[in-house]
Parts: sequence; C-alpha cells; structure tokens
Amino acid sequence: MAENNSLKNYPIHEIPECLIHGRTDLTGEAVPLFWNGSGLELCVSGSELWIDLEAGYEQYEPWISCEINGAFITRQMLMPGRQSLCLFRGMSPGEKKTVFFRREVQAFHEDEKNYLLICGVRTDGEFFPVRERKYKLEFVGDSITSGEGTYGAKSDNDWLPMYMSVSVNYADMVGKAMNAELRLISQCGFGVYCGYDNDVRHVMPAYYDQICGVAFGEHNRSLGAAKPYDFSSWIPDAVIIHLGTNDDVAFDNPPFIDPDTGKYYKIRKNSEINNDLNQSDVKRIRTAVISFLRHLRKKNPKSLLLWVYGMIGHRLSMPIASAVLDYIEQTGDLRAAFLELPDTPEENLGSRLHPGQAAHEKAAEIIVEYLKKNL
Amino acid sequence: MAENNSLKNYPIHEIPECLIHGRTDLTGEAVPLFWNGSGLELCVSGSELWIDLEAGYEQYEPWISCEINGAFITRQMLMPGRQSLCLFRGMSPGEKKTVFFRREVQAFHEDEKNYLLICGVRTDGEFFPVRERKYKLEFVGDSITSGEGTYGAKSDNDWLPMYMSVSVNYADMVGKAMNAELRLISQCGFGVYCGYDNDVRHVMPAYYDQICGVAFGEHNRSLGAAKPYDFSSWIPDAVIIHLGTNDDVAFDNPPFIDPDTGKYYKIRKNSEINNDLNQSDVKRIRTAVISFLRHLRKKNPKSLLLWVYGMIGHRLSMPIASAVLDYIEQTGDLRAAFLELPDTPEENLGSRLHPGQAAHEKAAEIIVEYLKKNL
Amino acid sequence: MAENNSLKNYPIHEIPECLIHGRTDLTGEAVPLFWNGSGLELCVSGSELWIDLEAGYEQYEPWISCEINGAFITRQMLMPGRQSLCLFRGMSPGEKKTVFFRREVQAFHEDEKNYLLICGVRTDGEFFPVRERKYKLEFVGDSITSGEGTYGAKSDNDWLPMYMSVSVNYADMVGKAMNAELRLISQCGFGVYCGYDNDVRHVMPAYYDQICGVAFGEHNRSLGAAKPYDFSSWIPDAVIIHLGTNDDVAFDNPPFIDPDTGKYYKIRKNSEINNDLNQSDVKRIRTAVISFLRHLRKKNPKSLLLWVYGMIGHRLSMPIASAVLDYIEQTGDLRAAFLELPDTPEENLGSRLHPGQAAHEKAAEIIVEYLKKNL
Amino acid sequence: MAENNSLKNYPIHEIPECLIHGRTDLTGEAVPLFWNGSGLELCVSGSELWIDLEAGYEQYEPWISCEINGAFITRQMLMPGRQSLCLFRGMSPGEKKTVFFRREVQAFHEDEKNYLLICGVRTDGEFFPVRERKYKLEFVGDSITSGEGTYGAKSDNDWLPMYMSVSVNYADMVGKAMNAELRLISQCGFGVYCGYDNDVRHVMPAYYDQICGVAFGEHNRSLGAAKPYDFSSWIPDAVIIHLGTNDDVAFDNPPFIDPDTGKYYKIRKNSEINNDLNQSDVKRIRTAVISFLRHLRKKNPKSLLLWVYGMIGHRLSMPIASAVLDYIEQTGDLRAAFLELPDTPEENLGSRLHPGQAAHEKAAEIIVEYLKKNL
Repeated sequence: MAENNSLKNYPIHEIPECLIHGRTDLTGEAVPLFWNGSGLELCVSGSELWIDLEAGYEQYEPWISCEINGAFITRQMLMPGRQSLCLFRGMSPGEKKTVFFRREVQAFHEDEKNYLLICGVRTDGEFFPVRERKYKLEFVGDSITSGEGTYGAKSDNDWLPMYMSVSVNYADMVGKAMNAELRLISQCGFGVYCGYDNDVRHVMPAYYDQICGVAFGEHNRSLGAAKPYDFSSWIPDAVIIHLGTNDDVAFDNPPFIDPDTGKYYKIRKNSEINNDLNQSDVKRIRTAVISFLRHLRKKNPKSLLLWVYGMIGHRLSMPIASAVLDYIEQTGDLRAAFLELPDTPEENLGSRLHPGQAAHEKAAEIIVEYLKKNL
Repeated sequence: MAENNSLKNYPIHEIPECLIHGRTDLTGEAVPLFWNGSGLELCVSGSELWIDLEAGYEQYEPWISCEINGAFITRQMLMPGRQSLCLFRGMSPGEKKTVFFRREVQAFHEDEKNYLLICGVRTDGEFFPVRERKYKLEFVGDSITSGEGTYGAKSDNDWLPMYMSVSVNYADMVGKAMNAELRLISQCGFGVYCGYDNDVRHVMPAYYDQICGVAFGEHNRSLGAAKPYDFSSWIPDAVIIHLGTNDDVAFDNPPFIDPDTGKYYKIRKNSEINNDLNQSDVKRIRTAVISFLRHLRKKNPKSLLLWVYGMIGHRLSMPIASAVLDYIEQTGDLRAAFLELPDTPEENLGSRLHPGQAAHEKAAEIIVEYLKKNL
Repeated sequence: MAENNSLKNYPIHEIPECLIHGRTDLTGEAVPLFWNGSGLELCVSGSELWIDLEAGYEQYEPWISCEINGAFITRQMLMPGRQSLCLFRGMSPGEKKTVFFRREVQAFHEDEKNYLLICGVRTDGEFFPVRERKYKLEFVGDSITSGEGTYGAKSDNDWLPMYMSVSVNYADMVGKAMNAELRLISQCGFGVYCGYDNDVRHVMPAYYDQICGVAFGEHNRSLGAAKPYDFSSWIPDAVIIHLGTNDDVAFDNPPFIDPDTGKYYKIRKNSEINNDLNQSDVKRIRTAVISFLRHLRKKNPKSLLLWVYGMIGHRLSMPIASAVLDYIEQTGDLRAAFLELPDTPEENLGSRLHPGQAAHEKAAEIIVEYLKKNL
Repeated sequence: MAENNSLKNYPIHEIPECLIHGRTDLTGEAVPLFWNGSGLELCVSGSELWIDLEAGYEQYEPWISCEINGAFITRQMLMPGRQSLCLFRGMSPGEKKTVFFRREVQAFHEDEKNYLLICGVRTDGEFFPVRERKYKLEFVGDSITSGEGTYGAKSDNDWLPMYMSVSVNYADMVGKAMNAELRLISQCGFGVYCGYDNDVRHVMPAYYDQICGVAFGEHNRSLGAAKPYDFSSWIPDAVIIHLGTNDDVAFDNPPFIDPDTGKYYKIRKNSEINNDLNQSDVKRIRTAVISFLRHLRKKNPKSLLLWVYGMIGHRLSMPIASAVLDYIEQTGDLRAAFLELPDTPEENLGSRLHPGQAAHEKAAEIIVEYLKKNL
C-alpha cells in the first residue's frame, strides 16, 4: 500500500470544521456515537481520509455506513478495539469531498458493553465548513426507526444488528428530501405505554430526557449516556414520534411480571376478535400518548409534534389519533398532529417481517408531503 | 357499413343473462343509470353487440365508458335522445366476451334533466352468466369518489362531467384488486355535516336511504330516483365512507344562508392559523360522523364500515378518527374503522386541483391492503 | 340539452386558424383523414366546440380520439354517415383550449369503403394560432406503428380497429417528448421486402410516394388518396422507419402465389432452427432495405433516416443493421442509422400478442434518447 | 466481544462444501480472487462465520461485498495484509445460511501489487452443498462490466475502485434473473481492436486465454494469473461480449505511440461530424470482432456467443452488428448474435459519466429477455 506521508492527525476536538450528528456528550476526549444515525460529517479536500475509532461490545456489534458527496459507499460490521478506517484514498487532492460517517445501528440496552467512539481523523487535506441544512428533525421511535428489516433476506428472522440501518430508513429519506439534519432515538420493542412484551419499562418516554439513557452500564455512563440532554443545544423544527406499534403487539403477547415488584402487567383483548381491545387498557395507551406529548412540548416549545403510526398494522390508529386530538383540545396546542402511515403489504416486507425499503419509501413520501405543507 | 341481419333485439328485461350494476329501480321499462359506475355487464358470444340508450340533460351531459374482457376500450360524451351504440363488431362469433358498460359520471343534482336509460341490447350472439365476484363494496363519497380530476390537463379548472370518471378511480381500482362488485354514491361538494359551501343540505347522509335522492326533478322521480333503496337487495361486505374533505373546505369558505329559513350556517376557524378550528364546530362534524355510522350500521348490519379520508389535506383526520373511535366505544361495534389516506403531492394532481391517477392508485393500494386483512 | 344559439359554423377551409395533421389532400371540400394520427388541431376560445364529420366503411370502422390541452379525453368508434361530435361544452368562454382531434386507426387496404372526412367545426369561440412544434417526425411502419394491441385484453386475438391506436403509441410518446409534429404511415402486416404472408405487394416502399396509396377504391381515389405526395410540403427532421418485423414473420409462414402472374414467393429457412435463415433470401431483405433508404433519401434530402427494429423479436437485427451500414458505405450518407429496440417480454404484451403500453413506452424512451443526441 | 470457542478453522482447500466463483488457480495454498465477482459461496449452519483473507496493493485497493441468503449485507475497502472478516455472528445455529463473498472490483493491470487471497474460513457450523444454478454465463467486457460508476455521486469523476462493483452490475442482475453462475473478465478502458487511448495492447482478446493475464507482476504470476485458463473446467451456456465502447471513444482520442516499436496507432474520423468515421479504421474493428468471435467459438464450442453494445453511445452498433453477421455468414455458426442496448440518458448516469443502477437494470432486462428466448 502506497504510504501517504503527508497525512496529518486531527483529534476529534481539533478538527477545524466538522458537524457531529446525533445526541452525544462532547466533554470526553473521544465522541461517542450512541444512537442510530449519529456520526461525523466533514467537508475536506485532499487525496485521503482516515477515521480513528474505538469500539466495544459483548453480543451486539456496531455497524457503520459512510456516504461520500451524498452517495452510499460502504457499510460494514466493526471489530472491537481501536481501529482506523480509510474512508477514501487516491482522490483528486484539490476537490472538496463531503464525507458523512454514521453509526448504522441503534443503541443496544441489551448489551452494556456496546459502544462506539470517534477519536479523530487523518488526512492530507484541509477542512471546510459543512453545509447548513434547512431543517432539524428529531425522530423518536422503535424498531421501524431503527431500520430493522431494511437489510437481509425476507426469510431472515434473527434479531441482529446486521439487519438494522440508517442508510435505508424512512427517517434518512425524509431528511434528504427535506434537506434536514436528523437526530434519531429509537429502540426495537419499545412503545409509549409499554413494550411489545408488556414491560412498562420498555418505553421511549422514560429515556427521552437523557443523552442516551438506554445505553446502560458503567462504561456508557462514563461516556455521558445517562447525562441529561440539553434541549437548548439543538432545536428541532419537528419531532416525529413513531411509537405505538409495540403497544399494539403487547395485546397479543404474554404478561410481564416485574422482577423487582412482582407486579403483573398486561394489556388485554376482550376476545379473540382481532381488534376487540379492552378499552380501559386502550385508555392507558391514550393517556401515555397525551402525557408524552405534554412532555415533548415542555422540552420542545417551538417544534411541530407529529405522531406517525401504521406501518405494521392500524389497530391503534384511532386511539392514538384521538389521544392527539384530546391533547390539542386540552392544551389548545395547534402544533401537534397525527399522521397515519400505510400498512406494509407482504411484497414490501424486508427481513424479520419488518417494513423493507419500498415501505420506508412510501412512508417517507407521506411524511415529507406533510412536513412540506406544515413547516 | 356491412349490415348484420342476424342481430336480435333484447329489451333490457328480456336479456337472458346480465348483471346490472349500481343502485337503480328495475320496475320501469328501461333501466336508469343514476350513479357513477352504474351500468350493464354481459357475457355474450356473437360478432356484434349494440346497446340502446336514452339520455337527456340540460347542462351536464352524461359520459359513458366500456370495458371488453376487463380492458378499457371507449369513453365518450352522450348526445341527448334515443340512440344505439355499437360496443363491438366483427369479433369471432364463437368466443365469449365480457362487456362492461358504465355511466362514467356522477348523478347531477344541479341538472334535473340529466338522465340515462338502458333500453336494451342487440346482438347476434348468445348470453352466458356473468362471473360472480368475490365481494360487494359500497362507496359513499364526494368529488374524489366521483373521480373529479382524473381526466383533463393539470391546468384545467372548469367543473365539468368531462373531467370525472369511474374508469380512472380508486374505487374501481379497489374493485378490480379485490374482485369486488361496486356501488358508488357520491356528489361533488358534499360532506357529512355540511358541503364545501357550508350548506347543511349538501350532505350524503341525507340521501343515503334513497335509490338516488340527489337526482332531482319530476322526470327522475318518475324513474324511481326518490324511492327508498332496498338494503336487503345487495349486501355489501364493506361500506367505504370517503367524506369530510368538503366539511374541511367549509371552514375556509363563506357562510350559507338558508333561502327558506334565512338561517345562517358557517363552521369557523378561531384565527387564520390553518388548523385553528372552532372546537364546537368540529364537534358538529364529529357528531355527524357518529350518527352517520349509527345509521349505516342500521342499514348494513353485516358490513365493515371503513371511513377513509386525507387525499386533499389532513385537517380533519384526528376529529374523524376519534369520532369513529367514540362510535365504537359507544356501541361496542368492532366492525368500524378509520383509515387515513396520503395527501396528494402537487405532482400527482390531476385537473381542477383534484387527485390524479397516481394519487388514486396510492389510495387504492392502501384501502386494498386494509380490506385484504379485514374482510 | 341547453341550446347554444351563438354557435357559428366554420367549413374546414374557412377556419381562421388550425393545423391539419397527417398526409392528406386539401383540394376537396372536406379534408380526409387517411392515416393513423391524422387529424385537426385547434386553439379556440368559447364554451362549446363541435366537429362535423362524414365517415363510411364496410368492414373496418374508423375510431377517433381527442385530447384537450394535451390530455386524453375521449376515444370512440364512429358510425357511418354525416355526424357532428361535441368535443367540449360548458367551458369558460374566455379561456383558450387546445383541441387535438385524431383518427385513431390506420388506413385499411382491406376495406375500400373506409373513409373519414372532417367537414368543419362549430363553436361560439374565436380561433388562435396553434403552437408551432419544434420538430417534424415521419414514421413509416407496420402494425406496431398502427398501435395494434395497445388496447384490449391480453386474451383478445381478433384483428380489429378497436385494438389499434395513436393515443397509446410509441410514435405519439416520441412526439410528445420531442415536441414534434407527427406523420404516421403504416399498415399491419406490411414489410420492406414482403409482408408477413410472403406477399411482395404488402410493402410500405410501394406506397411511400402517394398520399395514401393503401386506401384503395374509387371513392378513396376521388378523395386524393392515390395522388403523389408533395414531399416539399412538410419536411421531416427525421424519418423513422420501423419495418422488418413482418419480413421476419414471413420466414415462418406459407408461400404466396401471385394470383395474376402465378408466381411463387417465399423467404425460407434452411432448417427448423429458429434463426437458420436462407442467406440469399436474407439478401433480398437487405437489398430492399438499402433501396428503400436510397429512395427515402431522394424524397427527404435533409432528414435523419433512422431504422428501428426489434419489438417483436431480433432475428433480423443483424441483417438490417448491416444493410443500413452498407447503404452508408455505398453512399457516404452519414445521416442514416439503425437503432435496435428491446424485445417485448411476455408481461408487457397487449392484445393480439402485440406490444402493450409498457413496451411502447420503453421503445419511445430509447428513440427519444437517440433523437435528442442526433437532431 | 463474546468469545466463541467453538469456532473451527477450515483452510480453503479443506472446506467440506463450497463453491469458488470466477477464473482462478486452485493449485496454491490460498485461492486468489482475480476478477470482479470472483468469490466464495458457502451454505453453512452455525452462529458465526469468519473469512481469512490476505490482500495487497500499491495504488488500487480491493473492495469486497457479501450477500447472505441472497441479500446484500456489506461492502467495504480492504486494508493490506492478513486479516479475518466476520461475515455473520449471533445467528440461529440450526439454520443454514447461504453466504456469498465476492471481490467487488476488477483486476488492476495498473497495479501489479494488487491481489486478494482467500485463505480459509472459521465457523461453529457445518457445511452443506451450495445450490446448483441453472446456467453458466461468462461476461467479457470493459468498465461497464467492471461496474464503474455504479457507486458514487453523479458529480464524482475520479477513477477509483470505490466506484466499481459487482453488487450493482447488469451482469449480476442477469445472473440473478437467469439463476446463473457468473464469470466476469473485464478491464476499464479496454476494447476489441484497441483501448480508449488507441493502445492496441488494451484489448480483452489478448488476455482471454489466460486465467487473469491483466494481473501483471511477479507476485500475480506466482499466484497463477498468467497460466492458461482451462476452458473445459467450466463451460458457459453463453458468453456475453460487451466490448466496443472504448474502440468508439478512441476515434475522439489522441493517437498512441508504442514505446517499444515507436509505432503510431490511431483510428480516425474523416471530419468533425460525430459519426463520420474512417471506414478503413472501422474495418479494423470489424475484423477484430470477427476474429475474436472465431477465437471464442474455438474455446467455447457449445456456447451462445452474444455481443452486446450501446450503453454509452451507438456509434459502432452497425459495424459490430454487421461484423457479427459476417462472422455468421463466413462460418455458418448460428449460435452467435448481436444485441443492442439502450443508450444511457443523462438522468440514469452514475458517477464518472458511466451508466448508473437504473441503466444497468434496463440493460439486464433486455439481455435476460434475449437469453430466456435463446438458451
């Protein structure tokens, strides 16, 4: 390999110009990428660019993807430890390249050891300001927002990082169409009132105020994951809440008994009829929607709050829509809305029975149409 | 023109086998086609087929379209008076052809003189049973269900029969995808609580129980338009209600003063903010939705009641969705649902700022997906 | 029907502004529409427009289609005799409308009685100049250029005018994409050396110099069909020759014995291997291609001569391509070319095993791409 | 990272079941991947799979991509040296997975140091036979077959491995649609008579008989690159030759002076008119086409020989088509054909002004249609 002796080393905090994407803590020496879509964006000249990383995990490995000048170039699994990835080499030194390096997978609350740090970059080029985007959008979601099923064969049913992505993801499609900077916070299996497993701890509202509360364990704590998130640091034009799918699934799943309290949790159906839901349990979900909206408004005084739902079934469309309406009526807050997304037909499924690329494209189209008219 | 001397004349009631589509009155000598998509379907052999019609109108002329073996063949404006249209000629006599002749436009309450009658057919062939379809679907709607804007150039803004159709219409697309027989009842400008013009008489519920209550005037009355519709005669698997768009528009339109009572009608916005609707007026719409659903259930004890909305804006999605939910909670009726349709992006508009073919296709896809899972 | 008393009658030759499309003879009182896509284009104001026609036929009836402001509005079979069709009514009088009325089917050499005349129009509006198009394109072809199979169900196999069209036709798609005025001359079954039936009289070159030589019979002669065509009257930027498909088919068909001369004609295969063609017979086709190109050049000194082929099989691609090359080498004429079109996959077939709409769209795309780079 | 202690090491030649793709030499300890699309395919159970590689290069680095169960999972640049990549981990041990690991870039005659070896794999699973594909297809081409431009932004114009691929490539699309095993041999800039630079050494025929003659240098020689290829070892149903684009470009490029002989090479245009080519130079190309076809037939007695051309301009369509025809006439060989591919419209370009994904899809569709009818 031809040695390039003019590479200069830039620790992450000494890069003259760069844009760090995603909720993170900047106080450490390296910058942790906690959430799906978190990353580093550069506008750099030179012939060669390397990124210095540190990664660790027990069970669920981090994946990364990288775009150059807006085009998908690479997607790969990371090995643990310190490492340096070449993002490009042999390019015309004079040209500016926009490089967008991202964490391709969600945070993993199941794997306390999972972490990914950007330590710095090495290049023979100079740095230029990264283009300002027109909007800022935050997405709060579950496996759909984690891009589960956007890679992998239809027949694949393992639950693996490999099948998740931001590179094929309705949120990224919306961002590109709207020229928006994105922050995603999402966990597979999580809901608004409870998770797919009836576990009431598996809900995004419980973690919304922290930088990345679902990144458990000492090490992640030391990286700042559990710190309160500074909502004034990045003010979204819209917060898109994409929750409810797992609350829905919970109606069909076994109860959860809290190991600590022994308390029993289960949202119920009255009968085996598909949509014969126990209305008092539905009420719990509606209440959870309303209180999350109230909380989101407190944290995001200026943002449009858009609740989207429906890519994996419509059973909770009406309860969520009317909860959103109740919120509006109770608060007079006109900057909140519900938008239903089309259910995913069998032919548009990706892996693990989750929406595939075509389904993400349809959803993105509908959200974009809405945002264009309402931002 | 080569004379075909073996043509035999079949008055409509003497056709050995045929299927008459759409709400109509069969007691007269001829069969009136009142609604969009009403028509005559035949499975016939022979080389030639003619249909004998009588049409009349003052301002808004009827259009017809015809499919042969499921493929679109012709679409044309009708002249007034008795006439005979050749639907095919010169075909292989031995082959069976399925011919589906339809009224291509809605009923016109603005033109009492508008009518279209099928008097009979002439052919040298024999008749065979028309295939049974798997489902029966009724659509209750407004201009979208009348297919307004599905023909004509984007720049065209006149309100004309020419721009309406059943041949390019989400309802027909749903019918073909679901193998369903259709009945459409729809009026441009009509709503569930009031019309686009705040006129509370311009609502479909007011006419739901008649064969075709909106076909006004003595002559239409004599054809049976005003007669009560026999709901036992044709039991739909689903009633798709596609109303609300004109109620929405009314918020932005001038009031209506009832000429008879002098009474003033207007649903109001609190301010110029797009979705700052007066909640007591929104309540009127929600109440109208609920009572229409109650009425629909009375008339259609077995049918799925699916309310769809959204192709021209989402402002009433939440109120309608929660009204449907209120209905379900009040009645325990689980066979009712709300399904939001995507808003129509500018590039998918047809004429008169109405959804064009691509928008109808998207809507149909979403409805079909829903019906497949719920019928 | 509301009488419109302000309609004014304009005999065809007294229309202040109009554009007559297609090869025709203007010396008569009425204007005959001989070829597929021939028609009348107007830019007119007013609320109403009627067109006065005269049609006749024995076996194969003419069909017409009409666009308003560039959008397809109607397509219908014509009855024989004098008649008046309403092209629009009730429109905003002030607005200009562009109306494009066309013959939807080819000339029929099998039916001497087939003819269609435009006698005039009636309107309450005024006439304005029809927009100049950027290019002029002439297409010389067979059933594909006659749009055979572009309407009708896949299962339909009768040979009927009903299944032909200019409204769904690669030539029209090319015209719209290139902003070109079109002249089509085409006959189903015709080739360059012989027809699908080995009949050496069934070739387009034999009729290229007449206005419409294939419209046989006394009456068509009296309408000017047999007159020499004035090539100086309309100079195409390109002549697209789309022939060879029937010559190809002839290899698989029975011989033709000339009824007059008793002479036997048959192009042969050496064996049953699909493409094992007798080279001396292939040579005849190549010679015919070259001499037609020479003739086309004589008649069209300035035009690009583009030979396209392949939508129904590629067996003659190489012979035709090398014949075109031989022509170029012999003449040094660089304004001639061969362009292969993709074969039509089963799923893109229309009726009568002919290319359907999707296949026409693919072909148009390829031709447009070529013309854009070479005109 | 959770240690998996049950991983077992399998040197490449000791893998019980596997399929090695692409022309290579199996006599060494490791298996070299010389050409684009060369690789290793396994059907394996177990939870984890690693592949042990060795790579080297000076200027142009190898990239790899990997599919699991037919779905694209990863694509990445390789660092030099011995390394082990994890292809999957944490999967259900019981399930069989089909893993297809491939070299994503062409051989680089410009970089003698470029090589990639598969040394072996490590897994905790068992091996199963890899599915037999229905066909075997060999592609002989240039940059298009090297997938140049299928990755990267439209604006990117550097010549880099990063922008080449087999994962987005018409050849791979054809292979998947035809259920075929592929062998690609291609070099950017190469032609049939000369390269884009008029260099007569830059032609694929010169290297066709070796395993990978373009992989120069001592080290590649030691890996077997220069060895004669055993044509009996893998008999293709069709050889698709996709050459001519660079011969075409050479007409517009400066001459080449052979450094050794000082001899001057240039194919010429007579004038600046785009397609005014010197016929004696065109003749050289035609002769080269014919002699390459003769040679291909000698090496592939049973295979269909399909010459495709046109994705970047049609200037040589006619000369190549007639050369193919001349070959057929000279030899009576009916299993040879020419198929023109559509030119690439601006909107379908990828990076470096080369065809992008949409263009590759169109080309694949046309080739598949042809092969389906002729294999």
